[in-house]
Amino acid sequence: VLVSFLSDFGLDDPFVGICHGVMRRIAPGLEIVDITHGIAPGAVLHGALTLADAVPYLPAGVHLAVVDPGVGGERRAIALDAGGRFFVGPDNGLLLPAAETVGGVHRAHELTNEEYALTPVAATFHGRDVFAPAAAHLALGVALAELGPELEPAGLVRPHVPEPWHEEGVQHVTVLAVDRFGNLQLNVDRVDHELLEVEVREVRREARLARTYADGRPGELLLLTDSTGRLAVAVPGGSAAEALAARPGDELRLRPLR
Amino acid sequence: VLVSFLSDFGLDDPFVGICHGVMRRIAPGLEIVDITHGIAPGAVLHGALTLADAVPYLPAGVHLAVVDPGVGGERRAIALDAGGRFFVGPDNGLLLPAAETVGGVHRAHELTNEEYALTPVAATFHGRDVFAPAAAHLALGVALAELGPELEPAGLVRPHVPEPWHEEGVQHVTVLAVDRFGNLQLNVDRVDHELLEVEVREVRREARLARTYADGRPGELLLLTDSTGRLAVAVPGGSAAEALAARPGDELRLRPLR
Amino acid sequence: VLVSFLSDFGLDDPFVGICHGVMRRIAPGLEIVDITHGIAPGAVLHGALTLADAVPYLPAGVHLAVVDPGVGGERRAIALDAGGRFFVGPDNGLLLPAAETVGGVHRAHELTNEEYALTPVAATFHGRDVFAPAAAHLALGVALAELGPELEPAGLVRPHVPEPWHEEGVQHVTVLAVDRFGNLQLNVDRVDHELLEVEVREVRREARLARTYADGRPGELLLLTDSTGRLAVAVPGGSAAEALAARPGDELRLRPLR
Repeated sequence: VLVSFLSDFGLDDPFVGICHGVMRRIAPGLEIVDITHGIAPGAVLHGALTLADAVPYLPAGVHLAVVDPGVGGERRAIALDAGGRFFVGPDNGLLLPAAETVGGVHRAHELTNEEYALTPVAATFHGRDVFAPAAAHLALGVALAELGPELEPAGLVRPHVPEPWHEEGVQHVTVLAVDRFGNLQLNVDRVDHELLEVEVREVRREARLARTYADGRPGELLLLTDSTGRLAVAVPGGSAAEALAARPGDELRLRPLR
Repeated sequence: VLVSFLSDFGLDDPFVGICHGVMRRIAPGLEIVDITHGIAPGAVLHGALTLADAVPYLPAGVHLAVVDPGVGGERRAIALDAGGRFFVGPDNGLLLPAAETVGGVHRAHELTNEEYALTPVAATFHGRDVFAPAAAHLALGVALAELGPELEPAGLVRPHVPEPWHEEGVQHVTVLAVDRFGNLQLNVDRVDHELLEVEVREVRREARLARTYADGRPGELLLLTDSTGRLAVAVPGGSAAEALAARPGDELRLRPLR
Repeated sequence: VLVSFLSDFGLDDPFVGICHGVMRRIAPGLEIVDITHGIAPGAVLHGALTLADAVPYLPAGVHLAVVDPGVGGERRAIALDAGGRFFVGPDNGLLLPAAETVGGVHRAHELTNEEYALTPVAATFHGRDVFAPAAAHLALGVALAELGPELEPAGLVRPHVPEPWHEEGVQHVTVLAVDRFGNLQLNVDRVDHELLEVEVREVRREARLARTYADGRPGELLLLTDSTGRLAVAVPGGSAAEALAARPGDELRLRPLR
């Protein structure tokens, strides 16, 4: 059984390596796939959407995810069974969208059994002391119910995903993420026009519907379907984020021109 | 059989993790070595030279490389047999230098057989849908010829590697790469003088031939043979890139002083 | 036997991938855990402390570490036996703190036997040509004594770890590290007051003792015990490094307020 791992730990500190070590001490020979550890610190929604986009491409197994600004506080530590796949992480909305892409939450348990944790549990690093150990034990075949009491799935914290809205022919959308190529991922799947004006704060630019980067001229603003199926703003050979001075969470206004 | 993987995807997005997942779904237990995913976005030449430098140190197997600004456009997706090693990636010059370090291209095939791709193929992420699946299938032992029609090796796209040139005793060289330590890798293997003036744009500095960083005083500009066998400009305990305000692609002029 | 690997190579260059390749050519199927490669270039002390913090969480095996500003110079290349765990790296203080967390140095050998190196050894990349090969051979079961002559453990280079000091009720401490979350790790384990003034250069801020990030208000300066057991300055949802304009190596003055 393979463990996949997503976090906001970055790779410049030893946090990810330590979690790998913890898992391999519990489960020697364990296979681990790192999805990414580049989620911005504390960006739970971005982590949740990234995990949901990645999971369909990963082998079934245990999906460990830690974006956990509330570590050591009131938020619960949980493990979910989603039809043959397990999810382990904080109960802050991080896991639900991914669990729902693969069949939804069948059962949920709180991680309270210290037999499956590193003790004493540090108040600042549950990735190392609670979540990684739980993931490794699940990968070894420990039953979910062993990890702690059952929870009502309906009571789990849900993430708030911003919805697009229309007003007077203008579509208001939100930038969900900016990738390394400067592409702006939007919270819509499509637009119905071929040429649009994109406005964010004071910046206005024309954008053209296209199929892929290679369909545009260098520097041109394109609207295309990205690899997650969402609409994205892109600049071939450049960066839409720079061209529009846009960041995750920004609202964009799309006005049809043709 | 091991798969090595180089790209310009970075590690802050889930692209690399998703490709790992795709390969392990096809080939459970597959071993993957990440060469680097830090090639600058779209920097095909730098990717090609980095791959060529790394391959001799990697186990034989399948070498997957994706630096692919033309994704979804006219450029072909290819797999090469280079004498017991396979290369998979776009036909944009990325693979040829590496293939030539290990014996040259014996056979080339275009990746057109959708049986070995994830369909429908997204126009923006052939790494996930075309290249990673092809690499995993080759690692499993699928014959190259199964992946698509044979291509004439002579017709593959070659990268343009800048050549140094001389004029009036001045050697004109190009910065191929800048590494984490601020070392400037040049497109020459040696110089014939012990003391030179290095000029780039308006900046002029004296540089001394040395064997290793420890041979210099802190802050001193050195010229030394780097681990790829090329000449590099280095500053012990500092950064030659900062000292000279130089970037990849810059032309440096070397004037002998002694 | 598993190899863990820490360095200051970063992940944007192929250095780490090449070392992985070298080890897997020598020891096919070798398991490798990357602790981190984000140690700042040449930051031997930070590398040493990070390795020491990580090793207790890693499976026993070979610990390869390369932060090596003196590469190619006079410093020795060494391998240590620390009671069932081996350490491989430069003799510049990088390995000793970690070796001491797991029982201290039983035996030390210099890496001089070229049979276990890649030759000719490049003067600028002993990670590839000396250290990674030695680690892989140790993982395969080669005896430590095969790698070169025995050294007196007492003669190994020790790192200088800054000590806190007191003067007129003010505690002078040093920032050992800044992590991705902007937390400042200090060279003390505790303070005896609940409210303190933190001063660094011209900046003064009040800080409150807390147990975890979730105990503070956004923007508030907290002093808490981090996951290594050291005291750290943190800002919930923010960055203490930004709030105090502090960097690794800075001296902080702590004045009790209550």
